[in-house]
Formats: sequence, C-alpha cells, structure tokens
Amino acid sequence: MSIEEKLDHLLCSWARELGEQGDVVISSRLRLARNLRGLPFPQRASEEQMEKILAELEKAAGSLKQPMRLVRLDQIDPVDRLVLVEKHLISPQHAEDPQHKAVILREDEAVSIMVNEEDHLRIQTLLPGLSLMSAWRLADAYDDEFEAQLSYAFDEHRGYLTACPTNVGTGMRASIMLYLPALIVVDQARKVLSALAHLNFNVRGLYGEGSESQGGIFQISNQVTLGQAEEEIINTLLSACRQVIDHERAARQALMRESRQQLEDRICRSYGVLANCRLLNSEEALRLLSDVKLGVDLGIIEDLPAQVAKELLLLTRVGLLQKVIGKDLNPGERDYYRAMVVRDRLSAGKTKSET
Amino acid sequence: MSIEEKLDHLLCSWARELGEQGDVVISSRLRLARNLRGLPFPQRASEEQMEKILAELEKAAGSLKQPMRLVRLDQIDPVDRLVLVEKHLISPQHAEDPQHKAVILREDEAVSIMVNEEDHLRIQTLLPGLSLMSAWRLADAYDDEFEAQLSYAFDEHRGYLTACPTNVGTGMRASIMLYLPALIVVDQARKVLSALAHLNFNVRGLYGEGSESQGGIFQISNQVTLGQAEEEIINTLLSACRQVIDHERAARQALMRESRQQLEDRICRSYGVLANCRLLNSEEALRLLSDVKLGVDLGIIEDLPAQVAKELLLLTRVGLLQKVIGKDLNPGERDYYRAMVVRDRLSAGKTKSET
Repeated sequence: MSIEEKLDHLLCSWARELGEQGDVVISSRLRLARNLRGLPFPQRASEEQMEKILAELEKAAGSLKQPMRLVRLDQIDPVDRLVLVEKHLISPQHAEDPQHKAVILREDEAVSIMVNEEDHLRIQTLLPGLSLMSAWRLADAYDDEFEAQLSYAFDEHRGYLTACPTNVGTGMRASIMLYLPALIVVDQARKVLSALAHLNFNVRGLYGEGSESQGGIFQISNQVTLGQAEEEIINTLLSACRQVIDHERAARQALMRESRQQLEDRICRSYGVLANCRLLNSEEALRLLSDVKLGVDLGIIEDLPAQVAKELLLLTRVGLLQKVIGKDLNPGERDYYRAMVVRDRLSAGKTKSET
Repeated sequence: MSIEEKLDHLLCSWARELGEQGDVVISSRLRLARNLRGLPFPQRASEEQMEKILAELEKAAGSLKQPMRLVRLDQIDPVDRLVLVEKHLISPQHAEDPQHKAVILREDEAVSIMVNEEDHLRIQTLLPGLSLMSAWRLADAYDDEFEAQLSYAFDEHRGYLTACPTNVGTGMRASIMLYLPALIVVDQARKVLSALAHLNFNVRGLYGEGSESQGGIFQISNQVTLGQAEEEIINTLLSACRQVIDHERAARQALMRESRQQLEDRICRSYGVLANCRLLNSEEALRLLSDVKLGVDLGIIEDLPAQVAKELLLLTRVGLLQKVIGKDLNPGERDYYRAMVVRDRLSAGKTKSET
C-alpha cells in the first residue's frame, strides 16, 4: 500500500484538509453531553446497566437515517484505541479502561459518539478550519435524531443533566484548535491567551493542559454551559478566537517585515532536519513540523502542499505511526520509523506538487 | 561566472582534490626557512635592506626554469591577503603588516614563497592528501634552484641559520593536516594526539593553536629541525601519522558497527541544515561540513562528489566568501551569503553527480 493510500485509510478529513482560515485554525470541535433518563451516570452504574446503555445506543445508532455502527473499545487493539485518542475521536480517559465502553463513528470521522465515558453519550463533531457553527449544526442534527429514539435526562430549569455539574445546561463544549507560532516567537502568546482566560474561556495545549509550548498549538473552549443558548456561546467563542487569529496574523506580518532572514533560516533549517534526519522523537517532530507549517503558510516553503505538515503532526504520534508502519514498534524503533515516515511524506509531497 | 568557474579561479589543487588517503588526510605541507648571507633577519633589517632582499628574490624567482612572479603584499587588497592566509599560502603574521613583504606564488599554488616573513625566504609546498615526501622533493628542488642563484646563510655545524633557533639546522617544518571526526566522537582524539606530543610532534587546530575541536581538523608537524636529515624527520612524522590514520579508521568502523543510526542521523541532519539554512556562521559551517565530509567518506551521503565538502571548508571562510560573492561583505551579510554559497554548491554538486 502506498503512503498516499495509507493516509486515505488512516486520516480523516479534519486532519487532511485545511478548511477555512486553515493557516491559523487547525480544527473546530463540538460535543454534547447527554444521559438517558432513569439510569445512573456511568461511574455509578453497574455492569448490567452499562451493558443496557450500550445496547440502547447500538440500536439507536443502527436506526439513524445513515446508520452507524457501535464499536466496543474492549474488542479493539490497544494501538487502535490510542489512534482514536490521537485523532481526537475519543478522550484518553475513555481509552484507558475500555470495559463496557464504546465509540460510534461516522465513516468520515466527522462525527464520533463516546458511549459510557463520563456521560452515557457524548456526541462529538470535528471539522477542519474555523467551522464551529457547522460543527454545532452537525452535532445538533445527530442530537435530534438520537433524542427522537431515546429518553434524555432533562430538567426544565437546569437543562440537560450531566455527570459533572460543569456541563449541566447545554451540555455543550465547543473548542477551536489554533496554531499560534508567531505569537510564541514574539512572546505575546501568554498575554493574548491569558486575556481569553479572563473572559472565562479554557486554554490548553494540543493534548490537554500543560502542553503550552508544543508546536504552538492551543485549544480554546467555553467554560460556561448554563444560562446561555448554544449559538450565543459559540458566537462569543468565535469572536474571541477571531481576535486571537488577528493577533497571530499581525505577529506573522511583523516577523516577515522585521526579521525575515531569521524566520526563513529557522523554518528552512527545520525543514532540512525533517527531510534528512534518521532519528526523530515526537516532541521534536511536533516542533519542527510546526515551523514547516508556518513556512508553507507564509510562502517561505513553496513546493510543499499545505496539508502535508498538518497530516504529519498526526502521523508522527506513537499510535498512528505504528499503523502507518504496519507493526508494533518498541520505543527504540519509533524514532527511526518516525524519521522515515516524515522523510517519505515530505519527499512524496514535494514530488506531487512538482507534477 | 558560474560557481564552477569561480572555484577554478579561487581554489588551488590541494583544496579541490582529495589525494592519497583523502578520507583522513586533507593536505601535506612542507616549508624550508632560508636566509641570505650578510643581511640581518627581517625583524632587524632596515627598510633598505628589506627592499634589497625583495629585489634579490624577485630576480631569482624570475630566473627560475619556470619563472615565478613576486607579489608585494602592500600592493594587494586586504581581502586578497586574507584569502592567501585562508588558503595557507602565507601566514597570518605575514599578512598582518604587509610593508616590504611579498609572496612568490606558482600558478597552481602548490609552491608559495614568503619573502621577509620571519626569515628572508620560506619556501612552502602544499599538496592534497598524504604526499609529504612529494612535498619535500618539490620544496627541495626549488630550494636547489634558489641556492644556485643566492648565497644562503649556512653553517657547517649548525646547518641553515634561521631567525628563530627552533628552525636552525634543516630549517624544515613538515606538517600533515588530518581530519579526525570519529576519534572526537568516540572521545579518543585527545589520547591519540597527546601521544604524538610526547613523541615531540606539534599538534594544532586548523588555523593554529587552541582550535582543537573545530571540525575535527588537526595539523601535526615536526618539532625537531636539527640533528636529523630531512627524509628521516619526514619518515618519522609519516609513520606517526599513519598510526593516527589507523586509529581514526578503526573509530569510524566502530561507529558504523555500533551506532550507525546515531551516526547517520547526525550526518544527515548536518547535511539537511547546510542544504536549507539561510544564515550560517563560519564556526557552524566548519562543524557541519566536517560531518558531511565524513558522511561522504563513509558512503552515508551517496550523491555528493567527495571534494565538495572539502572545497566548502575553504569557501566559507570570510575572505574567500567575499571573493566568491564578488564584493565586500559586512559581518551582518556574511552569514546570509555563506548560507547561500553552501546551498548553491551542495545543490550544484548533487546535480553534477546525477548527470
């Protein structure tokens, strides 16, 4: 199988397409937390009750206008669970203890539903670029379809009931993944992002908290789930993100104006190392690929398709890497194969753009 | 003018050819210190006396079987004097204060004669690879030709008289420039080279003392000039160097056997940075080019002619860089143009090897 075919097989659209404002916005994600009336939340449910929930959800998913299949997490390989986490289709917590847990996946992976995670179901949508409103409409449509078949735990005053009180109300968490390398270079990322925190948004790194400096990638999401309508929450988040995007673009232009040689040098060196190295750990891969993405977006790297760096940000993760190579890799082998995949992909990308 | 033509113009054979054992030996150099009878050494000579020496040498050079031209150092640009130093054709001291000083150069630059440096004349020969005996024969032949025309200061017991007592006797300094990157990686360079120091050889870096770690390049030369015949001194030096060469080769094989991935990674990263960077200082250039030369010698870098890294070790020096670019460069511009020359040359080298 060629690397192109493997990619088609392994990566869903948000990871392969840039989408709107794709130079700064990586993806838009939305999830709705829902629970079935009359059954305890998963953490307090018995095994029989969790199986009952799985059965109800499997039936409901099979009865959708475009039926989806439920996949039990205890029936797939650990590496496949890891891949689902790396693709942001399930949470790390969901993968950790797979008993009586499942995921319902639409084929294009734009819709994934976690069953028996913190709540009975969490409907997630994931789209490339700045497309939060579309992500909301998509989630809302699936929510309606499920609600037509299931009896949700809902309270007139409090809205949707959820296992964790911070989700009560809309049960909605909307998040935008931003790529802010220039703000980091000009040392403005902390300032800009802490302003968002003051406005009650959550700011995190690529795979959760504490990963601030990893490749300049940040997730921004709403904290408020109660007392505001979904579209209101989304519009507030979008408006805040648009300001961050403007700041990032301004920082990029300032760098191009004031220290173009240094910027080009840094980006071209990162490309040179990626295209030639023989050993590459995941942290360095993220950092260098982040530079390459910026280089493509700024026109400094001209002959590489824009999505290649974005694809590689995922392909270099431990789980997906093992799927690309087609075998289990011990920690000592990963750096070798990661370097190989990056070299192959960069050179295939270049070749493709030349033809 | 293409970069190839410029190279033909700028670099002499020892810098462009690998020569015997060219994977480890960069060049062989020999100089004979001579003085004219009845005139004080340059440091104690009057201006008139120095001019008299210049005139005698100019006449003698013009009367050689293949006549050579004397070039006064005060009549050439400072950058041209710097280039002569970078090519090891004159000493830094000779370039520093050019009044009443000169160089006599054979067109292929294998023979260069400094006039009014520490001694009245210093006949130098410089050949690629391990060719010290040839360098000696060449210097000896020119010495004979000059001696036929000039009256040397010579003492039956002490031999050739020289300004510094350490040169008295043969007046000969033989040196071999070695490239020992693997010994540095396996941390054996200090041990191997300090054994040479105990055997009364001098060990120095590329451009003199204190530059030990610059690109793994070392000069080894004789200390003894008195009490031994020239060929005896040369054979002792050659025999010591052959041992160092064996150690370096063994270290390379050990690296290839025991940590090939790490070695390939390092070499390929260095190549990737050189082929892509936009700013490059001379110290980093030397370090990375040294890796690339090792990569070519070990077959890790396959599609680059073996001499390109060797050429670039010189072309990236401040003086030669300005000659390649064809204009004076301020310090801020040098890193930019150095990176450009290296990229161009590596890519021209690769293209050439593909055709």
